[in-house]
Amino acid sequence: MKITQVSQMGERPLVGLLSVMFNKDSNEDLLIGPGNDDCAVLDISGEECLVATTDMLHRKTDFPPEMNPWQIGWMSAAVNLSDVASMGARPVGLLMAIGMSSDTHVSFVEKIARGMSDCAKACGTTVIGGDIDTHDELTITGTALGMVKKSKLLKREGARVGDKVCVTGFAGSAGAALHALQHGIEAPNSFLNALLEPYPRTEEGQALAHSGAVTCMMDTSDGLAMSLHDLADLNGVGFRIYESGLPVHEDIGRYVTSDPDEQTDFALYTGGDFELLFTVSPDKLDEANNACDLSIIGEVVEQTAGIRIERKEGTNLSIYRKGYLQLGS
Amino acid sequence: MKITQVSQMGERPLVGLLSVMFNKDSNEDLLIGPGNDDCAVLDISGEECLVATTDMLHRKTDFPPEMNPWQIGWMSAAVNLSDVASMGARPVGLLMAIGMSSDTHVSFVEKIARGMSDCAKACGTTVIGGDIDTHDELTITGTALGMVKKSKLLKREGARVGDKVCVTGFAGSAGAALHALQHGIEAPNSFLNALLEPYPRTEEGQALAHSGAVTCMMDTSDGLAMSLHDLADLNGVGFRIYESGLPVHEDIGRYVTSDPDEQTDFALYTGGDFELLFTVSPDKLDEANNACDLSIIGEVVEQTAGIRIERKEGTNLSIYRKGYLQLGS
Repeated sequence: MKITQVSQMGERPLVGLLSVMFNKDSNEDLLIGPGNDDCAVLDISGEECLVATTDMLHRKTDFPPEMNPWQIGWMSAAVNLSDVASMGARPVGLLMAIGMSSDTHVSFVEKIARGMSDCAKACGTTVIGGDIDTHDELTITGTALGMVKKSKLLKREGARVGDKVCVTGFAGSAGAALHALQHGIEAPNSFLNALLEPYPRTEEGQALAHSGAVTCMMDTSDGLAMSLHDLADLNGVGFRIYESGLPVHEDIGRYVTSDPDEQTDFALYTGGDFELLFTVSPDKLDEANNACDLSIIGEVVEQTAGIRIERKEGTNLSIYRKGYLQLGS
Repeated sequence: MKITQVSQMGERPLVGLLSVMFNKDSNEDLLIGPGNDDCAVLDISGEECLVATTDMLHRKTDFPPEMNPWQIGWMSAAVNLSDVASMGARPVGLLMAIGMSSDTHVSFVEKIARGMSDCAKACGTTVIGGDIDTHDELTITGTALGMVKKSKLLKREGARVGDKVCVTGFAGSAGAALHALQHGIEAPNSFLNALLEPYPRTEEGQALAHSGAVTCMMDTSDGLAMSLHDLADLNGVGFRIYESGLPVHEDIGRYVTSDPDEQTDFALYTGGDFELLFTVSPDKLDEANNACDLSIIGEVVEQTAGIRIERKEGTNLSIYRKGYLQLGS
């Protein structure tokens, strides 16, 4: 079958196709081009470089119906700031374009803007520009900019066999919260906010960059399994993950499932967590631990060993390339 | 009547409302914040500063049905690059987010991407990143970044009484082309391309910044009349425009109207031209003329004198605050 429609090709191959096209154009300012990392990187400022990323979100596919306008604004800023965090950069500004129907209430838009502003401020920056447009479905495109010393920039590339694999925060919490919402499970805001108000790890990202301990980094917004596969492909390595090391929040057990296998599935195969996944030189674990709270979840192994998880009971299973949070109704 | 809906408030007042909110947040990197110029400006790089702008475009409202996918891509890049041009900055990168329906043909998206890439290259830069998303209506949000020496940055603020008012290129050509399309008037591509393939004046913008002759600048995408009113408000000045100086392309006479009054209306009150409107110190006209082709269309006068046009036959009329190209069907 000849592929002619976007739906037949899929998002990732299409991004790959366009990235190849764009990367053919020569740009002397560019250090990292489209499709190669969480952000593009421009060499425009002496010993520092600029990181830039953009994300388009839609009401139906990206914002669960339970999300209030402040949370919609917060989320739109957070997805972009998380990409800046994953490069180890300091956020310096957000541009936010909002398309909305003309019968939208002004107070609704104000709450969205307040959410954006609050998330930007929580990450040490502000909304510096934007655009407003009328549109049937609420659509928000954010762009985040950050600065980092070239020598401290953290890329997806750089993992070495023997490095420890680490994550910030908890894994699977956003996916479990979405599950609770979709199945009418009563749960407190503290549990649902992992999904509705994800906190970008910009502070941790900068501290880890400063530590000099990290060999590669990305965020986990597509889920831990997808992110591990991305890093494995790019670095030509495998991963051995320890189920016992996965930071699963006790609330998943309390509100969603007490089955340990299902908890592990949430941790591996659901997205929406804006945590940092990174590898650390084994001799620099102290420096990484001093930089921020982290969990060691495994280690980098040879590519031939695959991407596998060692279960608590001793069995050893492949981690599949699946995940990605499908939000909305 | 209490204003509760976006449609009752209007786009510009809403942008103003949100800009006030965002500008309250303190950002030590920020030189020019939201709503204050064609771009936001960040002080992040020694003697240079970064300019950044974003624009969201939709199939129905922003792309005439006659536009082919390559032109849609070109236009999406051009609107953003024009804003970079108007600050006198050198473009360093574009981020392009595309939302499209899942039955879109891959070749259609490739042509859009090619148009973006070609426009970026024509302005000396490339597409450095982006995002792809499925969406009912084709939606493209571009973000353009540029660099300029702080001492050369051209802002909307800075016009002084006695300065000459200048524009690049022609005025009203995009509006006249849209009129031709909407009224089924046969016209060659060379005429329609003012609308369908606008060329951002990034080269002229940089040359004018370098000349040191320009006191304020913006682009004319909302139309000459709207842009003059914006500059007048911001600078506390008035304008005297000479009808005889307006650069109206002879093709408007050939294809659309031979009535001089109607030609002037196109020049003043239609948008979509991505030309530069700027003021020049009267003693530096030579430097400006050496920088690029320009037309002198009037001069800066006291605010009390208003914004008026001196007609060829000697009468003198107010220029109204109206314009803005309403594209699409």
